[in-house]
Amino acid sequence: MSETPLLICGDAFNPEERDRLSSAWPSAFVSGPAGMADLDLGLRSGIKAIAFKGHKPFGGDEMDLFPRLGVIANYGVGYDAIDVAAASTRSIGVTNTPDVLSDDVADLAVALMVAQARTMIRGHAHVASGRWAQEGEMPLSRKVSGSTVGIVGLGRIGREIADRLAAFKCEIHYNSRSEKETPGWTWHGDVVSLATAVDFLVIALVGGPATKGYVTREAIQALGPRGVVINISRGSTIDEGALLDALESGAIAGAGLDVYENEPNIDPRFLKLANVVLQPHQGSGTVETRRAMAELQLANISAFLEGKPLVTPVN
Amino acid sequence: MSETPLLICGDAFNPEERDRLSSAWPSAFVSGPAGMADLDLGLRSGIKAIAFKGHKPFGGDEMDLFPRLGVIANYGVGYDAIDVAAASTRSIGVTNTPDVLSDDVADLAVALMVAQARTMIRGHAHVASGRWAQEGEMPLSRKVSGSTVGIVGLGRIGREIADRLAAFKCEIHYNSRSEKETPGWTWHGDVVSLATAVDFLVIALVGGPATKGYVTREAIQALGPRGVVINISRGSTIDEGALLDALESGAIAGAGLDVYENEPNIDPRFLKLANVVLQPHQGSGTVETRRAMAELQLANISAFLEGKPLVTPVN
Repeated sequence: MSETPLLICGDAFNPEERDRLSSAWPSAFVSGPAGMADLDLGLRSGIKAIAFKGHKPFGGDEMDLFPRLGVIANYGVGYDAIDVAAASTRSIGVTNTPDVLSDDVADLAVALMVAQARTMIRGHAHVASGRWAQEGEMPLSRKVSGSTVGIVGLGRIGREIADRLAAFKCEIHYNSRSEKETPGWTWHGDVVSLATAVDFLVIALVGGPATKGYVTREAIQALGPRGVVINISRGSTIDEGALLDALESGAIAGAGLDVYENEPNIDPRFLKLANVVLQPHQGSGTVETRRAMAELQLANISAFLEGKPLVTPVN
Repeated sequence: MSETPLLICGDAFNPEERDRLSSAWPSAFVSGPAGMADLDLGLRSGIKAIAFKGHKPFGGDEMDLFPRLGVIANYGVGYDAIDVAAASTRSIGVTNTPDVLSDDVADLAVALMVAQARTMIRGHAHVASGRWAQEGEMPLSRKVSGSTVGIVGLGRIGREIADRLAAFKCEIHYNSRSEKETPGWTWHGDVVSLATAVDFLVIALVGGPATKGYVTREAIQALGPRGVVINISRGSTIDEGALLDALESGAIAGAGLDVYENEPNIDPRFLKLANVVLQPHQGSGTVETRRAMAELQLANISAFLEGKPLVTPVN
């Protein structure tokens, strides 16, 4: 065993998370992949595992800085920042933290849908500002229960969202590569067909190059003037310029968004919209779930360093 | 048949609702019960049905102004403004609009719970104000799925709320007069016992004198510092002063409220709280549901005037 087998990479780690990792294994810290080349060669030669958190690109060139590197353990279910193909050709395992965050993300997706349709942001301001007493009732809003919903990507998170919306008596449609076993939900082979059939389009895809721009301008147009986009996946999964155009022109009714391109420096056009509910990429942002994610990341690191099988490998 | 059998009572009716009623039956209009005594005696003598909307008290003295009155058709499921006992002793039927609004109210209750726990009001402001880019991430929030929830009053609306929260994998407890048939949910005979057992307390009682102050100061204290109150019923069902005290002192964690005493002139103490999500009594406030409520109200009036059984009588 080298003296310092673990590198903690990412200024997104909070002090508690760094403490947990560095209490378990002798470790060094670097704020992001860009700083790896500046690390001492002796240190780099000993690193066997990297605990990674963040969205900065981590590619093959960085991996080559660590000759004994065997695992990159990502904090989060989405590992699109890591070049997994480059890792695989170098026999480096990549792990993520699936399942433990699905409930939180699904909770937020459903609440974004109700908050958008029921104008809850405006409702809160109407009361908290004192305007209710002065101006009377708000305009009527829009019913959620019983509506027709399309889930883009029926993976773990998409399934959790659909299960919740089924309890809201929604009619569930979905788009995925192949038809899945469901309680009678309607499969669509392409996203335009899905968008045409539904009022609410909920994006629950994985990120990365394969899904970039998957929800196209044509799909957004197909949603129509009653259409609402909910995105809790990655900003990259939808044509964001087309989404902004549609929100500004009224081509669709609104959106509930937790993710954007270029977070947190998002397109300022979002800040001027009245028909959106915006969240700061907090889908998994609860105390309980972040702790569970940190524990699962550490479990993968410890498994590798102790010569056991990885807990949640992705390659 | 008298020339004007219908009195439309309540300035809460919007023009579309008044048109629907007055197109169906010859009618007169009065802004509230307080104005009834000023109506012409000839008109009053012909009134057989009153379409009522609002929260102003409608008692026996007002009923006595209409010698041929046979039905008071309330717009809304809660008819606590109407003295039903006084109506019954006068052989006046009272109807409401149940069921058609249960889904909307339950949707809002669940969204209030998620919005409060996941700090979604703050989240929206964090993004929409541009602070996300400047200040970075918000503090972590709190998980909803899997939490322990207590429903106070497992009637139609309470049941709809519980069914939705079951899909969030919540552990459901409830308090009602007697144990009900449920999928294994835990019954409590009193509200303090319920509050002691749960983190989220969701009030889904009917209003009126029988439930006034039902959720007591003791019950609020029993919730404890992790406790959250959700109220979509009536402001009267909880000791509002005790609720405000607990929210200000941190004796409980927060609240999500759609109803208050003295709406819309609510206690200004609410406006200073950071741990609440406030809505302007919009539980049933969707275009779809308000139309269904208006149609059900008219169906009760037409049934009475045509000599048929009332559709949804409450006495």
